[in-house]
Amino acid sequence: MSDQAFVTLATTDSYAKGAMVLGQSLRKHNTTRKLVVLVGPHVAEPCREVLGSIFDEVCSVDVMDSGDAVHLALMKRPDLGVTFTKLHCWTLTQYSKCVFMDADTLVLSNVDELFEREELSAAPDPGWPDCFNSGVFVFSPSKETHEKLLTFCGENGSFDGGDQGVLNSFFNTWATADISKHLPFIYNLSSIAIYSYLPAFKQYGHNAKVVHFLGKVKPWNHSYDIQKGEVRGHSQPPELCQLHPDYLLLWWQLYAKSVVPLLQRAYGETSLSSG
Amino acid sequence: MSDQAFVTLATTDSYAKGAMVLGQSLRKHNTTRKLVVLVGPHVAEPCREVLGSIFDEVCSVDVMDSGDAVHLALMKRPDLGVTFTKLHCWTLTQYSKCVFMDADTLVLSNVDELFEREELSAAPDPGWPDCFNSGVFVFSPSKETHEKLLTFCGENGSFDGGDQGVLNSFFNTWATADISKHLPFIYNLSSIAIYSYLPAFKQYGHNAKVVHFLGKVKPWNHSYDIQKGEVRGHSQPPELCQLHPDYLLLWWQLYAKSVVPLLQRAYGETSLSSG
Ligand SMILES: O=c1ccn([C@@H]2O[C@H](COP(=O)(O)OP(=O)(O)O)[C@@H](O)[C@H]2O)c(=O)[nH]1
Ligand SMILES: O=c1ccn([C@@H]2O[C@H](COP(=O)(O)OP(=O)(O)O)[C@@H](O)[C@H]2O)c(=O)[nH]1
Ligand SMILES: [Mn+2]
Ligand SMILES: [Mn+2]
Repeated sequence: MSDQAFVTLATTDSYAKGAMVLGQSLRKHNTTRKLVVLVGPHVAEPCREVLGSIFDEVCSVDVMDSGDAVHLALMKRPDLGVTFTKLHCWTLTQYSKCVFMDADTLVLSNVDELFEREELSAAPDPGWPDCFNSGVFVFSPSKETHEKLLTFCGENGSFDGGDQGVLNSFFNTWATADISKHLPFIYNLSSIAIYSYLPAFKQYGHNAKVVHFLGKVKPWNHSYDIQKGEVRGHSQPPELCQLHPDYLLLWWQLYAKSVVPLLQRAYGETSLSSG
Repeated sequence: MSDQAFVTLATTDSYAKGAMVLGQSLRKHNTTRKLVVLVGPHVAEPCREVLGSIFDEVCSVDVMDSGDAVHLALMKRPDLGVTFTKLHCWTLTQYSKCVFMDADTLVLSNVDELFEREELSAAPDPGWPDCFNSGVFVFSPSKETHEKLLTFCGENGSFDGGDQGVLNSFFNTWATADISKHLPFIYNLSSIAIYSYLPAFKQYGHNAKVVHFLGKVKPWNHSYDIQKGEVRGHSQPPELCQLHPDYLLLWWQLYAKSVVPLLQRAYGETSLSSG
């Protein structure tokens, strides 16, 4: 299955840490697919090095250097920088099919079965469930689709200012056309949904396969006490911090065990608290 | 279309007011279907009278008086009183197809096209979007289904303590089997979704056909200044009161215009603030 890949994106060193944990979670659960990370120009060299030891491919993406269509779209919508970088995943035409995963997601079991789905498959967004959440989606790389997306983006912008708005407007039959393109919600369980309908989480949550730390506060904004094995700074009530403590702990355990040693080697030294 | 009906439920005088507004909103938008309300034993006589002038049928439902299956199920799950009353809608076998609507919903346009759908069609719940919200659903009355539901209920209870848990466990292929059974979210727009993903509401909200005042605070818990045409007690921030002010005003306008005169006639007098 060397023509299929999981793809993620990091434009900063913080998101790069997320990508590292995601990559290690995919490895831990023995994925048989390739791992690809798109990195923006501001990611530091040692971070790229670590990403390179986890991922099969590290693709530098500098949208400024890209072809005409990107340029044109970017000129019209300078606000959509990261969005354009994410859309770059469609140019990975060395792969026939890919699964994009946000750098703030974490895999809890093997999810290779996602490759049985077709473009564009994604799970519903709990905020407006006729939209899909663009944190996890199945797609088919294609230069043609990429160009169409950029043109669309330049002409229509994004109703939410990010890639989710663009992708939902572009793949606008997702809600009504084909149930097989609805990934079960357990493939993109956003922490926000846990508290909005707790009985459902208790009923179905134990089947979760992918956790998505959606929202302003990310796991790497917390810190971790390696001696005690406890996440610090998780004293806020659920209204303020909607990250589920069990999943947050899982993220940090994987970070401490499988990422920190690599960062230490790359940087010569590092502290456990990040940000 | 006299063999098809909209059905709602009220077990208290407060919910009865909701049912009245819902009924009037369906009439206002010229539904060609019958209107049926199930009323519990505690609804006051004048309220029944008003319901009788809006709805084609007012069905008294006293689950205590019902047949063996209900009794048996109720003995095992005394907590599910209102749920059993709601499930009673399946006994309306004088109709071939029905649309159930919670008494806290409001129709913004004609929605008769819902009868093109089959059992069990419903819109996703924003809290856990692989569950449907049971505030609006299409069903086919059937004594057999009713008995099965009761047995299921008695044996398994409800994971959320209400009808939504039971119905989702019973119709458990909704999320994965048939996209035509996914009603667009605009047929059951819960106020809660407005604030959780505001850009989507701005993009798609103007198409809303049914508003659902889901949650603890209902329109009738507010009060209305008929002189000023303003809803009072809506000074809470959106974290505390998630009812959208425009929809709340719409509810009260319809209540003041089309329900209050009927209540005045039935009671001899009434005040505009309810509760
Ligand atoms: O400054 C940024 C913001 C976002 N991203 C990438 O874009 C994804 C989507 O952003 P985010 O996860 O923060 O959005 P949310 O899921 O919270 O809506 C991230 O997971 C990263 O992969 C990035 O690399 N740099
Ligand atoms: O005491 C009650 C509670 C509920 N209901 C009916 O059951 C529906 C579901 O309850 P509710 O709307 O309060 O639940 P929510 O939609 O807020 O979860 C209501 O709309 C009413 O039709 C009722 O008649 N009496
Ligand atoms: Mn994300
Ligand atoms: Mn309701």
